[in-house]
This record gives sequence, C-alpha cells and structure tokens, in this order.
Amino acid sequence: MDTQAEIEDFLLNGHLQYVPHVSIDCAIFGYHGQQLKILLIRNKFIQGWCLPGGYIKRTETLVKAANRIVKERTGIGNLFLQQFKTFGDPNRARINEFDEELWYKATGLRITKTNWLIDQTISVGFYSITDFSKSTPKPDLMSDDCKWFDIDRVPKLEFDHKEMIQEALHTMRVYLYHYPIGYNMLPEKFTLSEIHALYETLLGKKLDVSNFPKKLISLGLLKKLSEKRSIGPHRSPHLYKFDKTAYDKALKEGVVLT
Amino acid sequence: MDTQAEIEDFLLNGHLQYVPHVSIDCAIFGYHGQQLKILLIRNKFIQGWCLPGGYIKRTETLVKAANRIVKERTGIGNLFLQQFKTFGDPNRARINEFDEELWYKATGLRITKTNWLIDQTISVGFYSITDFSKSTPKPDLMSDDCKWFDIDRVPKLEFDHKEMIQEALHTMRVYLYHYPIGYNMLPEKFTLSEIHALYETLLGKKLDVSNFPKKLISLGLLKKLSEKRSIGPHRSPHLYKFDKTAYDKALKEGVVLT
Repeated sequence: MDTQAEIEDFLLNGHLQYVPHVSIDCAIFGYHGQQLKILLIRNKFIQGWCLPGGYIKRTETLVKAANRIVKERTGIGNLFLQQFKTFGDPNRARINEFDEELWYKATGLRITKTNWLIDQTISVGFYSITDFSKSTPKPDLMSDDCKWFDIDRVPKLEFDHKEMIQEALHTMRVYLYHYPIGYNMLPEKFTLSEIHALYETLLGKKLDVSNFPKKLISLGLLKKLSEKRSIGPHRSPHLYKFDKTAYDKALKEGVVLT
Repeated sequence: MDTQAEIEDFLLNGHLQYVPHVSIDCAIFGYHGQQLKILLIRNKFIQGWCLPGGYIKRTETLVKAANRIVKERTGIGNLFLQQFKTFGDPNRARINEFDEELWYKATGLRITKTNWLIDQTISVGFYSITDFSKSTPKPDLMSDDCKWFDIDRVPKLEFDHKEMIQEALHTMRVYLYHYPIGYNMLPEKFTLSEIHALYETLLGKKLDVSNFPKKLISLGLLKKLSEKRSIGPHRSPHLYKFDKTAYDKALKEGVVLT
C-alpha cells in the first residue's frame, strides 16, 4: 500500500483492527553524556509537535502496543517501559473543534464527526528511557518530522501533551527511588561518577552525596571490578558493572534507594 | 425508572451517555482499628465478587467519574483517589465467553456481541482509602451485595480483579514513602502510636522504629499538642494533629519519608 492508501484504510477501517476510544501516548526520554532529551513528532495535518502515539490492536496488551510504538519511532525494541497515567479529560483532544474541510485537505477523505478517530478518546501514557545516541527517529504515517529535544527546550505541544511530559517526568523520578536504573544508558562498565551523573540528570537536580551509587552497591546491584579507567595522571577510578540477576530481581520487587 | 427499565436503558443506550470501550475499577481500601479491608460487590448475573466499577460519562474527567463511583458505593464523597494502572489485556473480560442466553435470563433482554457493554474494554484502576467504619456500602444496579473484606481474606474474584488489588496495594505502598497519609483515617488528634499503627497496617509489615511519624514531625507535617491522652497509670502520650497547610503542600509536591 502507498501512504495515501494506508491513511485511507486507517481512517475508514482502523476501528476493526484497533480498540476505538483508547490511544497510547509515549514519553520517550533519551539520555547520553549528561543530557536528557525527549522524542517528539510533528503532526503534518495540524503542523504541531506531539508525543509519539498510536492505537491498541484488538489482539495486543497495552504494553505490547506501547513497545511497538516506541520501536517504530526509535528503531529500538524491548526498551524499559512503564505506564505513568491515563488521560481522559473530555476536552483533551478538542473534538469540538473538528474541521471536516481541514481533514479533507490533509487526507483527501470526507470524514464526519462520527469517525472512530474523531470521537472522544482516552489515552494511556507510557514512558520509556533509552540512549538517544543509539536511536534512529522516524516519523509515523501522520507526521513529517521526528526528533529529540532537550527536556528544557520543548516547543509548544498540542493537546494535553505538555501535562503528559510533566506527569511522566514526575513518575520516572519517584520510580528512581525504588528501582535500579541504568541498563541501556550506561556502557557495560562504568565509573561511579558516570552513574552518579545519570541519576543527577534524570532527577534534574544536584545530589550532594552519591547516595544512589552507594545504595546500589550495598544492595548488591553493582559489582566492583578490579579493572580501572585511567582518566588523568593521578585519577584512575574503579569500574563497576550491574549484577544482572540482582538488577532484574530489584526491578521486579522494588527496593528503597535512599 | 424502576430497576428493570434502568438496566434496559443502560444496556441499549449507555454508549450515548458513556465513553464506550473504557471502564473504571476502584480498589477502595478501608482502615479502622489496625485493620485493612477492601470493598467488593457481588455481580448478580455471574454471581461472582468484583471490585466496584463503572463507566465514564462523556462530560466527566476520569477522576470525577471515579469519585462518583466511590461515593455511590461508600456513601462518602471527595475521598483520596489515585490512579494506579490501566488494564487492557485482550482476554481480561473474557468476551469470547459471551453467553447470549445468560444475559437474556439475567436481564430479560436480547443483546448481541456487538453491544457496547460486551465489546473489548480497557479499564482504568483507581484506589482510594477511607475509614470503613464511617461508610455505608451499597450495591450497584448489576450487583446484589456490597461489603468489606479483610485484605487477607478476599474471596475468588472475577476477571483480572485479583491482579488489580495487588497492583493497587503496591502503588499505595510506594506512595506512602513520598506523600503524607492519615486524613480521614485517624481521629483529629492522635498519638504517635496510632499513626505508627496506621503505617504498619497499610504497609503490611512491622516497622522497627517509627520512621514515618518521626519524619512527618521533622517535615512539619505533624504538630505536637500540649494536650495528652491518659491511657494508663504512668502512660499519657502527647497528642498530635496534622498541619493541614503543610499536609496539602506535601500531597501536591511530594516528599521523601524515609
């Protein structure tokens, strides 16, 4: 199918394949070199920036749908994914402003207010974290751009997506106190400074002492290696790596990292 | 409208008033005298125990809908409410087992698999906490019983509601580390032992030291009163109360209670 045929099929028959009235929006955070970014797409019809999103196939679980959406936009599968909130304000998608002519101009199709895409939609928010330097951002069927923005320099967003990013950041930060984090964002072997910087960047604040690295060690989540990294004449800090078994157990059961 | 007419209207026209494909389920926890309970209803058609739930009016926000559902079942409005997870497994409501004859027998109505209530539904979970001794449990249109069960003695539950309770408990327990809790569950003036017992009961574990009460005091959330309570010949502990302004601020912004 060419793009036009795909759009037409999605608009007219999408409700048979996907659950109507429910969407997924993904706050995909990217970390690299002490920078925190977020992936946005530009909707080509309304020419506005949004979080990447999509619909849930009738055969999919929510997390499987979110994983598919994140993989399609970043090129990376099986990323860490967590639901943070579901959004259902009746005015969130501004369906009262539906403009038949605008949709016709954008899609070449005459659709009405009763189309499954126009009717009231509740959206399940997921967030994800990855190393942005390893991703290959790709727009979806309805968008013409997809790229990373510094978390402090996010453009004006459509719908309730600004609130979504705030809620996702908040949930991720609370999560950091109870679960280990770092896989996919640090090299296999890393220094305590590097994991300290990761926590500071994700939490968005300076940490006086390296509480998190220390607690990760005392919980057996980090293993000290005999290997060191030489970073200066008198500076060669020890390298560490995650104990994957302990890490996975802590991810499942939760810990208290303070 | 009598009950039969109400059920008929709900089945045949509910999709005009409510958002189809999305429901709300509420894990309503009740605390009193060091006991933790959960409110369940018995669906009269399938004769099985479930969490109280309902649908979202097209004019309502999610939290407003959850508040309405909780108030209808407990008699108490404006309770603490928090979303914990949204459930969307395609098999969660067992729609493949839809039995037209069973529905006819139960409702006197011939409905098909395409009825809005039978089609695939994604459910937003909210939890709430109240003092169960102050509630007046009331069944809904589709149920014939509504009562409190000890959290350790929950009967067999329908659908994915057992998983919902586990997820709600988990979220509530993580929440306890970051937000104050106690309003509506303790008398206006209380002893440190009472709030310590509240935390132990909600967390489902013994706490060696009264970390939480101490932290609540150091954060200015608890005010020590000059008044004491006489509970024995040589025992008259000080009474405390919440500083409502600090409490509301902490509820909004979060704290670290460890």
